Amino acid sequence: MNRYPAPEIKDLPEDIRTKVLEVQEKAGFVPNVFLMLARRPAEWRAFFAYHDALMLRAESSLTKGEREMIITATSAANQCLYCVVAHGALLRIYEKKPLLADQVATNYRKADITPRQRAMLDFAMKVCLDSHMVEDADFAALHAHGFDDEDIWDIAGITAFFGLSNRMANVSSMMPNPEFYLLGRVPKSK
Amino acid sequence: MNRYPAPEIKDLPEDIRTKVLEVQEKAGFVPNVFLMLARRPAEWRAFFAYHDALMLRAESSLTKGEREMIITATSAANQCLYCVVAHGALLRIYEKKPLLADQVATNYRKADITPRQRAMLDFAMKVCLDSHMVEDADFAALHAHGFDDEDIWDIAGITAFFGLSNRMANVSSMMPNPEFYLLGRVPKSK
Amino acid sequence: MNRYPAPEIKDLPEDIRTKVLEVQEKAGFVPNVFLMLARRPAEWRAFFAYHDALMLRAESSLTKGEREMIITATSAANQCLYCVVAHGALLRIYEKKPLLADQVATNYRKADITPRQRAMLDFAMKVCLDSHMVEDADFAALHAHGFDDEDIWDIAGITAFFGLSNRMANVSSMMPNPEFYLLGRVPKSK
Amino acid sequence: MNRYPAPEIKDLPEDIRTKVLEVQEKAGFVPNVFLMLARRPAEWRAFFAYHDALMLRAESSLTKGEREMIITATSAANQCLYCVVAHGALLRIYEKKPLLADQVATNYRKADITPRQRAMLDFAMKVCLDSHMVEDADFAALHAHGFDDEDIWDIAGITAFFGLSNRMANVSSMMPNPEFYLLGRVPKSK
Amino acid sequence: MNRYPAPEIKDLPEDIRTKVLEVQEKAGFVPNVFLMLARRPAEWRAFFAYHDALMLRAESSLTKGEREMIITATSAANQCLYCVVAHGALLRIYEKKPLLADQVATNYRKADITPRQRAMLDFAMKVCLDSHMVEDADFAALHAHGFDDEDIWDIAGITAFFGLSNRMANVSSMMPNPEFYLLGRVPKSK
Amino acid sequence: MNRYPAPEIKDLPEDIRTKVLEVQEKAGFVPNVFLMLARRPAEWRAFFAYHDALMLRAESSLTKGEREMIITATSAANQCLYCVVAHGALLRIYEKKPLLADQVATNYRKADITPRQRAMLDFAMKVCLDSHMVEDADFAALHAHGFDDEDIWDIAGITAFFGLSNRMANVSSMMPNPEFYLLGRVPKSK
Repeated sequence: MNRYPAPEIKDLPEDIRTKVLEVQEKAGFVPNVFLMLARRPAEWRAFFAYHDALMLRAESSLTKGEREMIITATSAANQCLYCVVAHGALLRIYEKKPLLADQVATNYRKADITPRQRAMLDFAMKVCLDSHMVEDADFAALHAHGFDDEDIWDIAGITAFFGLSNRMANVSSMMPNPEFYLLGRVPKSK
Repeated sequence: MNRYPAPEIKDLPEDIRTKVLEVQEKAGFVPNVFLMLARRPAEWRAFFAYHDALMLRAESSLTKGEREMIITATSAANQCLYCVVAHGALLRIYEKKPLLADQVATNYRKADITPRQRAMLDFAMKVCLDSHMVEDADFAALHAHGFDDEDIWDIAGITAFFGLSNRMANVSSMMPNPEFYLLGRVPKSK
Repeated sequence: MNRYPAPEIKDLPEDIRTKVLEVQEKAGFVPNVFLMLARRPAEWRAFFAYHDALMLRAESSLTKGEREMIITATSAANQCLYCVVAHGALLRIYEKKPLLADQVATNYRKADITPRQRAMLDFAMKVCLDSHMVEDADFAALHAHGFDDEDIWDIAGITAFFGLSNRMANVSSMMPNPEFYLLGRVPKSK
Repeated sequence: MNRYPAPEIKDLPEDIRTKVLEVQEKAGFVPNVFLMLARRPAEWRAFFAYHDALMLRAESSLTKGEREMIITATSAANQCLYCVVAHGALLRIYEKKPLLADQVATNYRKADITPRQRAMLDFAMKVCLDSHMVEDADFAALHAHGFDDEDIWDIAGITAFFGLSNRMANVSSMMPNPEFYLLGRVPKSK
Repeated sequence: MNRYPAPEIKDLPEDIRTKVLEVQEKAGFVPNVFLMLARRPAEWRAFFAYHDALMLRAESSLTKGEREMIITATSAANQCLYCVVAHGALLRIYEKKPLLADQVATNYRKADITPRQRAMLDFAMKVCLDSHMVEDADFAALHAHGFDDEDIWDIAGITAFFGLSNRMANVSSMMPNPEFYLLGRVPKSK
Repeated sequence: MNRYPAPEIKDLPEDIRTKVLEVQEKAGFVPNVFLMLARRPAEWRAFFAYHDALMLRAESSLTKGEREMIITATSAANQCLYCVVAHGALLRIYEKKPLLADQVATNYRKADITPRQRAMLDFAMKVCLDSHMVEDADFAALHAHGFDDEDIWDIAGITAFFGLSNRMANVSSMMPNPEFYLLGRVPKSK
């Protein structure tokens, strides 16, 4: 269903192939985004550099699970199948809650999360849908939950970056790998 | 998280208890909707009579899977967690496609369905969101895919009925049973 | 203009015909909804059972007029001609206010109602248009006006049920009987 | 309920008082808009000059009833109680159709009008809600129904002018005179 | 690109020609709106009478710059190229701030204005987009910033009048004179 | 007004400082985005790598001006002051049309562009606002104007990337440098 052909691993530039093989080694499969974007190596490199800068940022006080919550909620608002399925899987895994991703994707207001996380998602959704209306009051509301301005930058940055990703996936009709759908749902043997 | 207490099975009126126990026997658990609505027996009886009239209608040319597609897609538009999770499970089971429910719920335009089913969901979404704009042209588009006026009534009726259900679930904050989340995802042993 | 042919009274199943004739006796005419839905007797029975469970509920603290306010306001939001005209008529009659239905249908914020009724309609409109956003704060706002949780269930139930009705009327292009338009407008002799 | 006090007739400037008394003579009452806007005579004069330029334009090929259709449909979209009730009354009178105003106000797609009038209202609604998207194709669609560019200017002008009126009525909470509600509904004696 | 031909100055009625020549004398060019609307003299006269009643009102406590802020912000919401460019120019000139018009047109929440002016624009935008929801609380918010009810009428009137203007400009595809684009941007020699 | 302090040039990492000084040399000032994002060097590097991959792509058949049109139109839809002003300036310069940026930002349907560019912007706006609805028909419409799939990727990529940029600018309240406002407006001496 993809609208653009993905390159084959063997044809990738050296640096990209190395990274792709590493991911394959670790995950057991190559998530489609790694191949799809590789048809334009310069964009691929920038995309994953940006991704890593936000998602692997050591100083961030957001947990890995919280970052995936943001991605899952805002990708659902953008109706991006790839990101909802792939990052929903990561959300289940990091939070060790098999039901959480479906809750966050369908209506995060019903999800089994803390009030602090709820405030985080309220803000992420505003950045996703109405960033022009972000005001000082939004910052104050997050401060009241213990988020500082760097945390807020993280929330905004993750939302903004995956908004880019959602649009590219929607336009290219990138489909999630079948493996993602079940990840983190079956507690043990998986 | 439910905003209204559910009655216990032993306290239910005879006819409702009988039906609830039958469902429990068959499914292995009692879907929460059967208990939640039972706090008002007259509404319970009407709700399930309506449900059965639409969903068990023998003459309908919509398959069981197609009816669940309609419910899953429109419940996602209404952000109803209960119905997306519960009817997504039934959709996976009837269609024997473990990935389909997540696709239909997130963005039915990306789902692995036929063009006929796509037209069916386009119409269901219009009934769900903009029923006042339904026109003869919508009927013509469905006729072109082989749907007749009774099929169109079925699509509209299912959409309208679950719109009711979505609103009651959202207001009462009815949560899906944990069992639903995994149904139809794991092919064999389940 | 109806998109579906309505059955004739003489061809209706016994129980439905009895009810229809009763309504005709009382109202002086048969409201079209009684005939239109009768083309599918099982749905007809469930529809009116549900209707009566909500609208004739003895314990409800909502007045008859308040229930019709909810229907008129939300049906206007759904642009359902049948329900605005038919239930607007009932609203005028129950409230004995010939001007009220047009006010509630056009902009309930300008209607001659109490602050309590205004809060009731604010909530009904949220259930109608954004039920996924209903929150504890909405319940608190209604409690502050003296509504208890059963009243809130009533408001939600009536809104949700007529949302179903609105969609069926819009899709089938069911037209209100001419008699409804003038009911309750002319104070005396009518 | 008006947010601004209306002047009394005796305190009006001569030219305005004369016109108001004329209207009272003809209609049997003074429509509130004539008093409310008179608190600012210069605006009153410009308002009614504009009104008359559009509504009494001799060369227009739009009938009086068609002009009132436009006002009723677009005022309903703007949820302006005053204009829906007052101009709905005029619509009933000019078209001699007691049911038409409620149809046009609730959902003009269900109204008893010609396809040409339907196209006229589709365009008026676009001017009302999305004038920035008006395109040559909209002109072509109207030409196909026999409207020329002057007719289109009339449709746009009436929509735009009553959009102004709707906003002033909504902000000032101007209420329609009770007399309007029944005008044109009772065929004979009125 | 105009969809309607504009008359030539020499063919205008005497009173209109006089005014047009005055404007030309003062501004150095004839703003297109003066010619475009002149194709219908009665509408032209009413339009400018209304314009002057609001914009030249001596008693108003709104500054000239504030009135242009309202026009620029709401015309941007209506995506009216003519008014954004023409009144943006006047805004720059009156406020002596070459950057202000682009700020107000793009996102007035980021503009270099006072909190009082921000409240004024919040209200103007509500009148522009959702006048049916204007409530007493909106009046209270403006009173808190020192606006009285006459000021509020001014804000509403200017918004409503230019909403009319925006729609006529959008439908007729009236283009702003090239001269406007640069006015007030270059501080001195202009 | 910025919500986050920008670092000083002297404190920047070597590679970033070099680039910033280059830009300053070329432009005569440092656009704020170069400093604001530099508070997080890893994000800065990824951001500009992505920017350059899209905007400096040698093989692209989109002209420089066309790329800036996309940015200006979609940033206006996202109400991002920084990008509308900064990229509007570049649009004026590349296209040598002093009026174009205001047209594209206010209502691109009125802009002085080719039908091909209009189709390009229609698609960019869909990617910006409704990427989940992008369909094969959108690709066909662009192919009809001579765009191939790589061009479509470019349009989508630029829209998606600046959607990220718009959100970061809106959240951080990043203000455009005053220099941008006038660039490309005054034909000669600049």
